[in-house]
Amino acid sequence: MKTTPIRLGMVGGGSGAFIGAIHRIAARMDGGFQLVAGALSSDPARAAASAAELGLRSYDDFHQMAQAESAREDGIQAVAIVTPNHMHAAPAVAFLNAGIHVICDKPLAATAEQAGEIAAAAASSKADFFLTHNYSALPMVREARALVAEGDLGAIRMVQAEYLQGWLSEEAHSKQADWRTDPARAGAGALGDIGTHAWQLAQFVTGQTPSHLSADLSSMVPGRPIDDDARIALRYSSGAKGGIWASQVAVGQENGLSLRVFGEKGALEWRLQDSERLILSPKDAPAQILTRAQDRSASFRTPPGHPEGYLEGFANLYDDIAAIIRGDSSRRDRVPGLAAGLSGMAFIAAAQASSAHDGAWVEVAT
Amino acid sequence: MKTTPIRLGMVGGGSGAFIGAIHRIAARMDGGFQLVAGALSSDPARAAASAAELGLRSYDDFHQMAQAESAREDGIQAVAIVTPNHMHAAPAVAFLNAGIHVICDKPLAATAEQAGEIAAAAASSKADFFLTHNYSALPMVREARALVAEGDLGAIRMVQAEYLQGWLSEEAHSKQADWRTDPARAGAGALGDIGTHAWQLAQFVTGQTPSHLSADLSSMVPGRPIDDDARIALRYSSGAKGGIWASQVAVGQENGLSLRVFGEKGALEWRLQDSERLILSPKDAPAQILTRAQDRSASFRTPPGHPEGYLEGFANLYDDIAAIIRGDSSRRDRVPGLAAGLSGMAFIAAAQASSAHDGAWVEVAT
Amino acid sequence: MKTTPIRLGMVGGGSGAFIGAIHRIAARMDGGFQLVAGALSSDPARAAASAAELGLRSYDDFHQMAQAESAREDGIQAVAIVTPNHMHAAPAVAFLNAGIHVICDKPLAATAEQAGEIAAAAASSKADFFLTHNYSALPMVREARALVAEGDLGAIRMVQAEYLQGWLSEEAHSKQADWRTDPARAGAGALGDIGTHAWQLAQFVTGQTPSHLSADLSSMVPGRPIDDDARIALRYSSGAKGGIWASQVAVGQENGLSLRVFGEKGALEWRLQDSERLILSPKDAPAQILTRAQDRSASFRTPPGHPEGYLEGFANLYDDIAAIIRGDSSRRDRVPGLAAGLSGMAFIAAAQASSAHDGAWVEVAT
Amino acid sequence: MKTTPIRLGMVGGGSGAFIGAIHRIAARMDGGFQLVAGALSSDPARAAASAAELGLRSYDDFHQMAQAESAREDGIQAVAIVTPNHMHAAPAVAFLNAGIHVICDKPLAATAEQAGEIAAAAASSKADFFLTHNYSALPMVREARALVAEGDLGAIRMVQAEYLQGWLSEEAHSKQADWRTDPARAGAGALGDIGTHAWQLAQFVTGQTPSHLSADLSSMVPGRPIDDDARIALRYSSGAKGGIWASQVAVGQENGLSLRVFGEKGALEWRLQDSERLILSPKDAPAQILTRAQDRSASFRTPPGHPEGYLEGFANLYDDIAAIIRGDSSRRDRVPGLAAGLSGMAFIAAAQASSAHDGAWVEVAT
Repeated sequence: MKTTPIRLGMVGGGSGAFIGAIHRIAARMDGGFQLVAGALSSDPARAAASAAELGLRSYDDFHQMAQAESAREDGIQAVAIVTPNHMHAAPAVAFLNAGIHVICDKPLAATAEQAGEIAAAAASSKADFFLTHNYSALPMVREARALVAEGDLGAIRMVQAEYLQGWLSEEAHSKQADWRTDPARAGAGALGDIGTHAWQLAQFVTGQTPSHLSADLSSMVPGRPIDDDARIALRYSSGAKGGIWASQVAVGQENGLSLRVFGEKGALEWRLQDSERLILSPKDAPAQILTRAQDRSASFRTPPGHPEGYLEGFANLYDDIAAIIRGDSSRRDRVPGLAAGLSGMAFIAAAQASSAHDGAWVEVAT
Repeated sequence: MKTTPIRLGMVGGGSGAFIGAIHRIAARMDGGFQLVAGALSSDPARAAASAAELGLRSYDDFHQMAQAESAREDGIQAVAIVTPNHMHAAPAVAFLNAGIHVICDKPLAATAEQAGEIAAAAASSKADFFLTHNYSALPMVREARALVAEGDLGAIRMVQAEYLQGWLSEEAHSKQADWRTDPARAGAGALGDIGTHAWQLAQFVTGQTPSHLSADLSSMVPGRPIDDDARIALRYSSGAKGGIWASQVAVGQENGLSLRVFGEKGALEWRLQDSERLILSPKDAPAQILTRAQDRSASFRTPPGHPEGYLEGFANLYDDIAAIIRGDSSRRDRVPGLAAGLSGMAFIAAAQASSAHDGAWVEVAT
Repeated sequence: MKTTPIRLGMVGGGSGAFIGAIHRIAARMDGGFQLVAGALSSDPARAAASAAELGLRSYDDFHQMAQAESAREDGIQAVAIVTPNHMHAAPAVAFLNAGIHVICDKPLAATAEQAGEIAAAAASSKADFFLTHNYSALPMVREARALVAEGDLGAIRMVQAEYLQGWLSEEAHSKQADWRTDPARAGAGALGDIGTHAWQLAQFVTGQTPSHLSADLSSMVPGRPIDDDARIALRYSSGAKGGIWASQVAVGQENGLSLRVFGEKGALEWRLQDSERLILSPKDAPAQILTRAQDRSASFRTPPGHPEGYLEGFANLYDDIAAIIRGDSSRRDRVPGLAAGLSGMAFIAAAQASSAHDGAWVEVAT
Repeated sequence: MKTTPIRLGMVGGGSGAFIGAIHRIAARMDGGFQLVAGALSSDPARAAASAAELGLRSYDDFHQMAQAESAREDGIQAVAIVTPNHMHAAPAVAFLNAGIHVICDKPLAATAEQAGEIAAAAASSKADFFLTHNYSALPMVREARALVAEGDLGAIRMVQAEYLQGWLSEEAHSKQADWRTDPARAGAGALGDIGTHAWQLAQFVTGQTPSHLSADLSSMVPGRPIDDDARIALRYSSGAKGGIWASQVAVGQENGLSLRVFGEKGALEWRLQDSERLILSPKDAPAQILTRAQDRSASFRTPPGHPEGYLEGFANLYDDIAAIIRGDSSRRDRVPGLAAGLSGMAFIAAAQASSAHDGAWVEVAT
């Protein structure tokens, strides 16, 4: 018999939004969710219009939605929060308190205080909290993690993660640019928006979290009140060293996420631009080009050579989340949750503190 | 208000099928269709079980389905035919006769006779016929076509299309392999299964169809009763020359589709493995790496650098088909239809005739 | 003690020549030769001036040079012939008759008759004849050959060699272009100039020569009296199939030589543009990126990762030739000689005959 | 008339040496030098044997050689110093004092004191001092520099140079490894051996020198008494930021030198592994693949598409040095000299000081 789709709600993601539309495609791709309700905009008229377009029950605000939906027999079982960073915490707390699973976009929040509120709510809720670090759901990234875990690289020595974009290389004004360059709404610039992806990617693949970091944050565009370029040196308690470079002023880079990991026995390299391949370099043997033919995560829908990408990665997360909600805890390990979100916040805080002290080495809170 | 999704049916695509699942994801991705009915297998029990899993009205056979659905007020408006080649014609004719739009997988049919039946039914039907040559729906392929049409390459001189796979490089037995290597069900081997994609891709991008060809078809795996490697030389009436190489015994190639076009003033190169980039080489100037930042077809859902691929290409077709069914004829030009299907059949027939006569040049029927 | 360099002469290669300068660098690179004499131009004044620049004994013509040098105690031991194709045979015969080793640029000659004269002279001479198919002297090409010979690919099924250039994509007048587009001086166009390189490369790596071919030669530039694009289908007596595409009107291609070989058990791919890497795809295992770290031919001067290229390939040949002249016959196997030259002439003749008969399959003389 | 080659001597480079053989090929490639004398080893017997093999006047030590050669009418005009770092200064001083031009391998010296001695000798000598930072002599690197100088990138914002090798990823014992991992002979490890190349490359292309740096030097291989991994953050007085990563424990990396420069108006990327191409990304326009067809430095011998590489880059330097010695000062600007050497020493000193103070920002002496 047909598996009934999980009833999904959405906060944010009204017409013109970017990431809300992505979440909707991802939720729809494998048929595991049905979007039924939304508080799609803080502007009630716009919220209503956007919901009508999508055929959803519409709410003026998320408080009302959390209350009403939790009271309905056919109310939503999970909610996707796709608002700007400073608007993650309040709805996350509301839905967690209402016992509704939360699927939240990254980073966790705009401030450490907000992050703490989410953590407290999650601790006392029976509902789950998921964070959509989508890149770690790509099959070759998952394969990279498996290779490291199985010891193909030996002890890790160096880790380098980069996330380079060029779209903010001059003063920009748009729905997407405005809140991302506003410290009040974003909390951090390139550091938070894409640096946390790089941080989580390195963490996910290596299974290790740096203990200390030294950061140099810049605002390359004159007058920009937030970082648009972040260079961060990392130290691991194992003695490994690493680096993160996140920039939104890297002209010519569309979405240049990459990860390189070097160990005693081997190395691997992955680039989003060529996301379906993973280069594994065993020591003293030829490099190998791994593809989905080698991947063991089964995180795809088509045979190797039929390129899947960003949307499918997002959909992999939604597929895993659906399975977890239905009780399959075996996939829990590969879906980022509250811990990943708190780690990202600790990364942001440490980087901002280090940069404020001229790059002094700062311990990363755990 | 919400646009009501088009009600879709499916013939073939029961559990374990490959391309049926792809069509379902593609139809679902942008929300333009809702799958409601199916005759998913020629085995009634399996058809019923597969339909139940998907929550569909199930039919034992497509004749019954065409009749019943056309009689319902809420009956399907379009049907996807995702059966093996020899089973395209009968359902296509049945649904066209019932006034239901047909979305048919490629190639058009297993025989010229079957192709003729479809053509006749299409000619007398008010319904549309679409053929899912999905690769020509990828944004950079559409951009390639626009560049040629606008004269960026000048007069075309040489065209080379390749489609190389390795999965049939030894005797294989599986649901996918069995009918593809059976002349009765497939009509042609590599030539029909992937050669027609290369043929359509070259035709779509250049806007030209070769007038003559010379072919050398091989069965590289001993005992295989159908071609698994096809080398075809092309001549265009303009004086241009070309080549198609389609192989399913190319060890190490997962899905190696590529197109190169050389003109008097410029050249372009596209490879499925790097499907989001298009190399444009203007004469006497540096080559350019075009991305979706340059694409003008708007055939995507995410910003450049967020890789889309195979499923999104398929979904682009479904999105266009939905628009056409709703009355937007502006997109008709970029969706392959009956003419593309008949051209593919003419290509197969000419190649088989040429190869049977030791590679003699044969005219391609138009 | 120091190994005395071999005394070398040169015919052709006066100021402004391309390939003569290349041969001089190659001869000089490893110190195995010392250029001491030359008949560098058919114009005596220019010959003298060019020789003076290089500090050489100068001759007005090669007959005089062959006679005088063979009579000197310190006369040249080998001569490099770097003239246009139609001027290979006469000096080659003269020096072979004088007992002086000949290092001749490819193709062997402009006509079959000239080729026969060289063959006859070589048969009755104690001196050696070498043909500078330089690309087969690159380390990864030599490694490719070793892999095929050792059975890593299993029985060969398909071979594809391409040599694409764009420099003659419009009417061109220069020292280099003029003789290459003159049937009397070149004998064949793209077919002879670069097609023979592709032919020899495929032959060298696979160890097999096609038995039959079918060719379609074109003159894409209006009014050009010689082929500038050649498409050739190949059949091997083993049942393998192949193709050669040589073009000098491929806009945007600087020097696009490549080779792909597919066997029952594996495949390999090599591209001149990335000449220091060789992709080996074993069946059912990840592709490997081989580099000089894997090469066993010792045909290089620097560690892997320090790119060597075209000149070093040429120098590898000169280094091998010096060793052979000094008596080391172990390297003879990897240096092209008369047999390679005659095979190239048979290729040209067969391709021209086939193309003249509308692509009929023609046997390649052996 | 023939240009008489410049008479060259060599200190170091006896049999088994790596870089000495490279210098000899480079000096020979374009015919501008003739190697005539050497003090090839500190072991007199080995020096004599090596010199005999090369047909050179042999000296037991460089002092004797400087004296004798400067006294001969046909004595050497220039000397190549290809000894380990700690043995650069003494011969450099001796030859500079003797009025003989010095071509010295990098880095300048093992200690600041030695560097000062060279600087003092150079200041009072009529002879020139050249430092073979060979990578900056590659044509596409020179083109990169020209593009930056002409403003194609606008004001520079970010610079990233990497030089990654894997050959010292475990304890190694060889002629090459021994002195490079000995602090007394090398002065610095990866930092000096390859980090200075990255430093000079960034400096050469951007025309700017960082004012401050913060470094984290590691010895990844247990027991190694010198750095084998160096991560360095850079600040420019213009406000630009940068990074250098030099490592000799990067498993799988053969010789991974790369440079990326991002400016307000454009960006460029160059990788040694693909040394004949340069990617130029103008803001808001497609990236361009520049080749030698675009290069204006004329630093090559063959047409574009005929790969040149490491040895040719070295030979470009020797060719320039020959021209400068003969009086052509127009090329002086592109040949590294004493200033580049002193800058490299300042880089090493600053990095070691910063790393010793836990990555504190340190001013780079100018």
